[in-house]
Amino acid sequence: MAPYTPTPDDRFTFGLWTVGNVGRDPFGGPTREPLSAPYIVQKLAELGVYGVNLHDNDLVPIDATAAERDRIVREFKQALSDHGLKVPMATTNLFGDPAFKDGAFTSADARVRAYALQKTMASMDLGAELGAETYVFWGGREGTEVDGSGKLLDALGWFRDSLNYLAEYSESQGYGYRFALEPKPNEPRGDIFLPTVGSALGFIATLARPELFGVNPEFAHETMAGLSFPHAIAQAIDAGKLFHIDLNDQKMGRFDQDLRFGAENPKGAFFTVKLLEDSGYTGMRHFDAHALRTEDEAGVWAFARGCMRTYLILKEKARQWDEDAEIQAALQAYRVQDAGVGEAATRFSPENAAALKAHAFDRVALGARGPGLEQLDQLTMELLLGVR
Amino acid sequence: MAPYTPTPDDRFTFGLWTVGNVGRDPFGGPTREPLSAPYIVQKLAELGVYGVNLHDNDLVPIDATAAERDRIVREFKQALSDHGLKVPMATTNLFGDPAFKDGAFTSADARVRAYALQKTMASMDLGAELGAETYVFWGGREGTEVDGSGKLLDALGWFRDSLNYLAEYSESQGYGYRFALEPKPNEPRGDIFLPTVGSALGFIATLARPELFGVNPEFAHETMAGLSFPHAIAQAIDAGKLFHIDLNDQKMGRFDQDLRFGAENPKGAFFTVKLLEDSGYTGMRHFDAHALRTEDEAGVWAFARGCMRTYLILKEKARQWDEDAEIQAALQAYRVQDAGVGEAATRFSPENAAALKAHAFDRVALGARGPGLEQLDQLTMELLLGVR
Amino acid sequence: MAPYTPTPDDRFTFGLWTVGNVGRDPFGGPTREPLSAPYIVQKLAELGVYGVNLHDNDLVPIDATAAERDRIVREFKQALSDHGLKVPMATTNLFGDPAFKDGAFTSADARVRAYALQKTMASMDLGAELGAETYVFWGGREGTEVDGSGKLLDALGWFRDSLNYLAEYSESQGYGYRFALEPKPNEPRGDIFLPTVGSALGFIATLARPELFGVNPEFAHETMAGLSFPHAIAQAIDAGKLFHIDLNDQKMGRFDQDLRFGAENPKGAFFTVKLLEDSGYTGMRHFDAHALRTEDEAGVWAFARGCMRTYLILKEKARQWDEDAEIQAALQAYRVQDAGVGEAATRFSPENAAALKAHAFDRVALGARGPGLEQLDQLTMELLLGVR
Amino acid sequence: MAPYTPTPDDRFTFGLWTVGNVGRDPFGGPTREPLSAPYIVQKLAELGVYGVNLHDNDLVPIDATAAERDRIVREFKQALSDHGLKVPMATTNLFGDPAFKDGAFTSADARVRAYALQKTMASMDLGAELGAETYVFWGGREGTEVDGSGKLLDALGWFRDSLNYLAEYSESQGYGYRFALEPKPNEPRGDIFLPTVGSALGFIATLARPELFGVNPEFAHETMAGLSFPHAIAQAIDAGKLFHIDLNDQKMGRFDQDLRFGAENPKGAFFTVKLLEDSGYTGMRHFDAHALRTEDEAGVWAFARGCMRTYLILKEKARQWDEDAEIQAALQAYRVQDAGVGEAATRFSPENAAALKAHAFDRVALGARGPGLEQLDQLTMELLLGVR
Repeated sequence: MAPYTPTPDDRFTFGLWTVGNVGRDPFGGPTREPLSAPYIVQKLAELGVYGVNLHDNDLVPIDATAAERDRIVREFKQALSDHGLKVPMATTNLFGDPAFKDGAFTSADARVRAYALQKTMASMDLGAELGAETYVFWGGREGTEVDGSGKLLDALGWFRDSLNYLAEYSESQGYGYRFALEPKPNEPRGDIFLPTVGSALGFIATLARPELFGVNPEFAHETMAGLSFPHAIAQAIDAGKLFHIDLNDQKMGRFDQDLRFGAENPKGAFFTVKLLEDSGYTGMRHFDAHALRTEDEAGVWAFARGCMRTYLILKEKARQWDEDAEIQAALQAYRVQDAGVGEAATRFSPENAAALKAHAFDRVALGARGPGLEQLDQLTMELLLGVR
Repeated sequence: MAPYTPTPDDRFTFGLWTVGNVGRDPFGGPTREPLSAPYIVQKLAELGVYGVNLHDNDLVPIDATAAERDRIVREFKQALSDHGLKVPMATTNLFGDPAFKDGAFTSADARVRAYALQKTMASMDLGAELGAETYVFWGGREGTEVDGSGKLLDALGWFRDSLNYLAEYSESQGYGYRFALEPKPNEPRGDIFLPTVGSALGFIATLARPELFGVNPEFAHETMAGLSFPHAIAQAIDAGKLFHIDLNDQKMGRFDQDLRFGAENPKGAFFTVKLLEDSGYTGMRHFDAHALRTEDEAGVWAFARGCMRTYLILKEKARQWDEDAEIQAALQAYRVQDAGVGEAATRFSPENAAALKAHAFDRVALGARGPGLEQLDQLTMELLLGVR
Repeated sequence: MAPYTPTPDDRFTFGLWTVGNVGRDPFGGPTREPLSAPYIVQKLAELGVYGVNLHDNDLVPIDATAAERDRIVREFKQALSDHGLKVPMATTNLFGDPAFKDGAFTSADARVRAYALQKTMASMDLGAELGAETYVFWGGREGTEVDGSGKLLDALGWFRDSLNYLAEYSESQGYGYRFALEPKPNEPRGDIFLPTVGSALGFIATLARPELFGVNPEFAHETMAGLSFPHAIAQAIDAGKLFHIDLNDQKMGRFDQDLRFGAENPKGAFFTVKLLEDSGYTGMRHFDAHALRTEDEAGVWAFARGCMRTYLILKEKARQWDEDAEIQAALQAYRVQDAGVGEAATRFSPENAAALKAHAFDRVALGARGPGLEQLDQLTMELLLGVR
Repeated sequence: MAPYTPTPDDRFTFGLWTVGNVGRDPFGGPTREPLSAPYIVQKLAELGVYGVNLHDNDLVPIDATAAERDRIVREFKQALSDHGLKVPMATTNLFGDPAFKDGAFTSADARVRAYALQKTMASMDLGAELGAETYVFWGGREGTEVDGSGKLLDALGWFRDSLNYLAEYSESQGYGYRFALEPKPNEPRGDIFLPTVGSALGFIATLARPELFGVNPEFAHETMAGLSFPHAIAQAIDAGKLFHIDLNDQKMGRFDQDLRFGAENPKGAFFTVKLLEDSGYTGMRHFDAHALRTEDEAGVWAFARGCMRTYLILKEKARQWDEDAEIQAALQAYRVQDAGVGEAATRFSPENAAALKAHAFDRVALGARGPGLEQLDQLTMELLLGVR
C-alpha cells in the first residue's frame, strides 16, 4: 500500500455535513450539488475512513414525516452496513432553523428552549439507534449581539438546566453517551456562550453530573480567538476531558474557514497530532472541515484524502522526532530536574515551607542559563520540512 | 460635591505599578520619573481612592536587604495610615527578573520553580502584613513560544502543584487569602497558559482546594483574544468565582494597551459596570491600567480621575436604564416565560421527558417572532450617548 | 420635528441589499421574507432617506429575460419617482453566481474575466439609466485561498486591465461615472486582493486614468483587519480620493458583521462623522449594514432609523465639541506652532538644511512636555456620554 | 560545504538591533548583555552574512559627542573592512527617545518635527559614509491613541512635507538613496499612520518625487493586521516599489513578535521566498527579527543561522515546485487562456465593447468547472513537508 494511505484503524471520521457541504456562503449560493447520505458513506469507505458523524437534520429533514424518517434511516443503516462504516458521534442541529435564531437552550423564549430539548432527545434517540457513543453539543446560536437583552446570567442557568436534563435522559434511556461540549468564540452569533475550550471546562464543573461531560475542541474555533490549539487540548487532556476532537485549519482573527487539516498551520497541526498520539487518546480523529467553495466534487474527495494524508504524514514525523538524537539531547538539556531543596518544594508541610524559604538561590545564574529553544525549534522546523 | 467624584465607599483601587508606570515600552525608554510609594498613596487618597495594590517588587526591590525591606515597608505602612488607604490585594512579580524568562511555576528548571514558590511565600507574608485579603496569580511568563519544548502537560501539573502548595501555606499561616487567577492569552509569552477566564475556571476544578480559588478577569486580557468581557465575568459570577476584577480598556487583536477604563469601548464598560452592580459584587473595582506613554505626571492623575469618573457615570446610566420605561417594556416583551408544557421541560423525569417529546410546537411561528433587539440596542446606545 | 429625524438633505442612502437582507448566514436559512424593490423605496422615503443604491441583481435577477428586465426597471423607476428617491450609486454583483467562485476580473479562466466585463458594462448601463453618478467596485471574490495557484501578480494585472477597460467604456458612453474601489481584507475569500483602503489607493496610482478612481471605504472592512476607520478615511481625504463611504459597525478580528452604525464603536463612529463633516465631504452617507438575523421586518426599520439617528446625534456632538471651551483650550495647548528655526524646517534648500542641522534643540525638554491627551480624551468621552 | 549554508552571494543581512537585541520587553528587563558593533560584524561574517544594517543610535548613542561619534564610526568601519561586510541600508531611530513619544515627523510640536528632520539628515550622512544605498523610514511613533487630538489630516501633511524635504536633501547631497517606507499597523502607538503596505503605496503617490520612494514590507507587520504577506509584496512588486524587505514571523492579531523567519508560518514564508526569487528581486534579504527573550548568546546565533537556513531550504523547495510535473500540470489545467471573444475583452474600443456585450457566455458551465485547488494545495503542502 502506498505510504500515508488511511485505513479504518486510523479512526478517521468525517461528518455528512463536511464532505456534503454544497459551498454556500454569505455572499453566494451553492457551487456543488448535494450528495446523498448513502453515496457519502460509500465514497468515505473507499477512502479508508472509519466512520461518519451527523446532525439529525444532515440525514432527516426537519419537516420529514415519521415514515420518511424511518425510510431514510433504514437506507442509511443499510449503506453503513454495506460499506462497514460506523457512526461514532451524533449531534443536534440547533442552529439552522429560524426558530433558533436567538438561541436554543438559551433562547429568551421558554417555548424555544423546550422545543430544543425535545429536538435533542429525538436526535439522541437517532444517534443511539445508529450506535453513536459520543454526543456533541455545539451551541452555535447560544450567544448574543445585544447584551442589553439582559440575559447573560439567565442564559448560563438555562444552558446548565438543559444539559442536566439531557444527561438524565441519556442515563434513564441507557444510552451511555459521553457528552462533549464544543466551544466557539463567535460566528454565527456576535459572542457565543462558552467561547473557548477553557470556558467549557469551567462550565462542566458547575453541572450536576460533570463526569459525563467533556469537550470537543475544534482547531479552527480556538484559532479564531488567536489561541493555541495544542495548548487548549493539553488542558483538556490534563483534566481528563478530551472526549472528541475536530480537526481542520484556520487563520487567526477571521471568519470560520474550516480549511483542510494542516493547510494553514502545519506546525500547530504537528503538535496537535503529537499530543493526541502521545496521550493515548483512543477517540475519533474527526475532520470538521469542508472543501473550498471553488471546488467541484473531485475537489471534495481531494480535500478528504488530503486531511487524512496530512495527519498520517505528521504522525510519522512525530515518530521521527521522538527518535531524533539531536532533538532528544536538546530536550534533555532543556530540563533541570533537581531543585537542590530535597522535597521541600514538592510537598507542603510547615517544615518544608520553612526550609524552602531559608534556601539561597542563585537568582542571577538562573536567569543567565540558555534553554536552547531557538535551536530546538529550528530542528523541529527542519524535521517538518523534511530536510533532517 | 461635584457629580461623579469618587469616595472610598466606591471601593476603587489602583496598583503601585499602574499610576507608577514610567512609560517604557519595547521601542523606547521611560518618559516619566518613578514616583515613590508613599507619594502615590498620598495622591490616590486625595483622589478619593479606597486602596492600593502591589506586587512585592513594586514596593521592595528584588535585591533589597532585610533591613532595607523593613524600612521601606514601615514607611509605606505609615503612609497608608496617614492617608487612610488599604491594601486589599497583593501579588507576586514572577515575570520581571531574567530568572523567570521561561516561566516561574512552569519553568523547565526545577530550581526556578522552587525559587518561585519561595518568592511567593515571602510576598504572601508581605501582603498579609499589609492586610491584603485577596492574593492574585498572574502567570505572565507561564507559557511558551516553542511547543517543541514538550512541556505542555508537565507545565499544567507543575502549575497545579504550586497553587496547591501555596494554598496550604496560606491556610497553615492563617492568612485566609482568597486566591484569584488572572488569565491572559499572550504577551509577554507567545501563548500563555490559562489564556482566558474560562481556562482559569476549568483549571480551578482540578485543584485540591477549589473553594479557595476564583478569578481576576481583566478587561484588556479577554479583549486581546477578541472575547467579550461582560460574557467572561458573567461566567465567573455564575460560577461564584468572581473574586477580583481588573478594569481597563483595549482594542481587540493587538498588544496589551491597558487603556483608561471606558476609553475604547464604552458599551462593554457599561455592561461590565451593570453586571458588577447588579450581581451584588462587593469586591474592589481595581483599575489595572496606566496613562499613555505620551503623558507627564499631570496626565497620570488625569488618567486616574478619568477611570473613576467613567465608572461612576456608567453606574448612574445603569440606574437610568433600569428606570427607563421604554427599555423595560422592550425587555419584558423580549421574554416568553411559559413553554406551554407545564413542568415537563424544567424537571427531568421519564414521564416529563415523554410528555415533552409528545408536545406539538409551532416551529414556524417560533421562528417568525421578532425579539426587538435592534430597537433595544438603539435605546441603550441613545441612553449611553445621553440623549434619552 | 423631533430631534435627530432625518431628511433627504442629510444625504442618507441604503442599499436594496441592506434593508432587503433576509437573514441568511452560513449556519442557517433566511429568517425574513424578501421585500420588493418598490416597497423598499416607499419605506425608505417614509424614513427620510435621500436615495437607494443597488447591485444589478438586487433589482434584476441574473437570468431575467430582456422583457422582464425592462418591466422590473420600469416599475422601480416609477417607485423612485413616486417617492422622490434617487439612485446615487450602482455596482455589479460579481460574487453571488458560481461563475465567479474563484474571482471575476481576476479569475484564472479568461472566459470568466470576459463575462465579468460584459456583466459590468450592462450594469453600468443600468446605473446610468437610473441616474447613478458613482460606480462602486467591491471585488468580493477577487482573492485566493491557495497561493499555489501562482496568480498573485497576474491577477493584479488582470484587475488593472479590467478597470482601465471599464473606465474607457464609461467615458465613451458619456456616463461620467466616478469609480470607487471598496477594499475588504477577507471573507468570502481567504485573502482578498486590495485588502485595505491604502491598498486601493496604491493600486489607483497604477491605473491609466487615476483621476477617475477613488475609494469607497467601509467601516466594518477596515475594522476586520484591526485598522482604524477614521485613520483610513483621513488618508483618503488627504489624497482627494474619498468618493463614497459605507457606514456600519463591527468588532475587530472576526467575521463580517455589518452592524448598525455606531452599535459597537461609538467613538470611532464619532470621529468618522466629524471627519466627514469637517472635510466638506458632499457625497452620500451610505449605510452598508443590515438588521440582525434575529429580527423581523419591524426590526429592519428600527435598524434603519437607528443608523440615521446615531449619525445625527454624533453630528450634533461634533458641533458641541467644536464649541466646548475646555476642549478647544486643550487642543490649542496641544500644539506648538513654532519650531524656532524660521523657515529652515519647512522649505528645503541647501542653506536651510545647513541652518537646521546647526540648530541646538533641547531634546530633554521636548521629551518632558505633557501633551494633555488623557485629559482631552476623557473630555471627549464625557461629551460623548452626554455628561458635559 | 554542507547544504543550506549561506554565503554573501545570498545577500542576507541583519540589523545591529536584531542580533544585538538584549531581550527587554514590557514586563521584564534585559536577559542578555549588549554586544559591541564590531563583535556583531565579526560574528555575522563568520555566519556567511552579506551585510549589516543600522539605525543611527544602534551605533552612535544619541548623546555622543562628535569625537565619540567619530571614534565609534571609525572602529565600525574597520570591522566592516576586516570582515568584508557591507552596510546596504540605514535608517533613523525616531522612536526611542522621549522627545518622539507623540510622533517625530507628525508630532504636534513643530520643534519635534524640526528636530526629527535634523536627526534624520545626520543619520543620512552617516549612512552615506557607510555606503548605504537604501534608506528606510519606519514611523514607529507616527500615530495616535487619542484621535481627539484632531491632527489626522495635518499629520499626513507634515509627514509628506518631511519626506519631500529629505528626498531633496539626499539629491542635493548626491547620496542617491532609494527610500523605503516601512508600514506597521500598531505598536508602539495605538494606530500608526500608513498601517499597511498598501497605505504606504498610496501615500507615495502623493509625494513630490514618487520615483525615489518604495516600500520595505515586513512579514510580521502585515501579519499583525491579519493580512497576507505574499499578497502585500505582490502588490509592491506589481507597482515596481519593492525596494527592501524585512523577513521574520508572527502570529496574527497580537503583539509584535519578530520571530525567526519561517518559525510560525512556513507556508507564507515559502510563497514569500518564491515571489522574491521569481520576480528577479536583487535587493537584500533582511531578517528583522530577534532571538526569543529566553535565549542566551548561543541562542542568538542559532536564531540567525536558522533564519538563513530556512530561507535556503525554501528556495530549494521553490525550485523543486517549479520542476514537479504533477504540480505543473495542475497549474496548467487551472488556467483557461482563451475567452472565445478574440481581442474584444483585452483592448477597449467601442466596437470591441459592443462585440463583448453581444457574446453569449455559458454561465452555468463556467460555474461548474473545478479548478483543482484543493489538490494543488495538498501537493504543495506535501512538497513543503518533504514527502514528495
